[in-house]
Amino acid sequence: MADEKGFTLWFTGLSGAGKTTISRIVEQELRARGSKVEVLDGDVVRENLSKGLGFSKEDRDTNIRRIAFVADLLSRNGVPVITAAISPYREIRDEARQLMGDRFIEVFVKASVEVCAERDVKGLYEKAFKGEIKEFTGVSDPYEPPLDPDLTLDTEHDSADEDAAQVLSLLEERQLIPAAQPA
Amino acid sequence: MADEKGFTLWFTGLSGAGKTTISRIVEQELRARGSKVEVLDGDVVRENLSKGLGFSKEDRDTNIRRIAFVADLLSRNGVPVITAAISPYREIRDEARQLMGDRFIEVFVKASVEVCAERDVKGLYEKAFKGEIKEFTGVSDPYEPPLDPDLTLDTEHDSADEDAAQVLSLLEERQLIPAAQPA
Repeated sequence: MADEKGFTLWFTGLSGAGKTTISRIVEQELRARGSKVEVLDGDVVRENLSKGLGFSKEDRDTNIRRIAFVADLLSRNGVPVITAAISPYREIRDEARQLMGDRFIEVFVKASVEVCAERDVKGLYEKAFKGEIKEFTGVSDPYEPPLDPDLTLDTEHDSADEDAAQVLSLLEERQLIPAAQPA
Repeated sequence: MADEKGFTLWFTGLSGAGKTTISRIVEQELRARGSKVEVLDGDVVRENLSKGLGFSKEDRDTNIRRIAFVADLLSRNGVPVITAAISPYREIRDEARQLMGDRFIEVFVKASVEVCAERDVKGLYEKAFKGEIKEFTGVSDPYEPPLDPDLTLDTEHDSADEDAAQVLSLLEERQLIPAAQPA
């Protein structure tokens, strides 16, 4: 793609909702179509840009602002970006939207606390319920769902592949990526 | 340029040596030739990625590692980057080189402490000599010059335009940017 269009798929949702899983499938499919893409995963960013920050509202906001700064740098240079951090606060997500304008695509990766806790992929919910982790989003810290996301993925009912397909359809509709070639 | 090549011009040198001035001229020239480019200036990065960090060796290293992380993300996606932070420690610059490999181009922006202090563009040297600023590179904090930079700019003798021209020549030689069109 000579004339690649930058955008930021901004995934938001609880820990265990499926952000990382779905973002990896979308990433693979974009690469398969010859597109560039960078995934800014919550854990990767904490390690490389935000070491030392905690989980207070202030520190979370700082972390999300850094992700938005980097996503903006990449996407304004034609690089598709997927961010996959919880990003619990509406106000800071809206800041990111203002920064990036039309390049910002908010994707609500939706699953209830109960379902995420049942999955408990990283064993974090058990610790949060026992009080061993403080400030855990959805348990002891707030999560503010998007009011008007570009896309909502119902990960309680859809498979990760189905959800990834919805993301790709939206990108095709907006002519941000080429359609898949027939096999 | 459909087939743009990413690289990172890593400027290093004392405060007042001319990093920002030269990087802005190079930036303008790259844009005039139709190239993308992002400048990661020391002050911009401190504001957006490293607020709260101080000037201890550890904090400086963290700041520089973040710049390298972002420069790598951009340059590996075909975006030319200019970093213009003091980056006083050799070891961390070498880490950045290892991360980016051939995409890393180290440019030593050279001027003595005496000359930088005479210029004292931001009035910082005066404060540093009075002890009002602690940990000031070249005065009360170390600066380790590159041992084998890709390019050394002698800003005590060259004009900023002459130095920028040297940078552009190097990029042309390495076929990283197209030659300037005759006017």
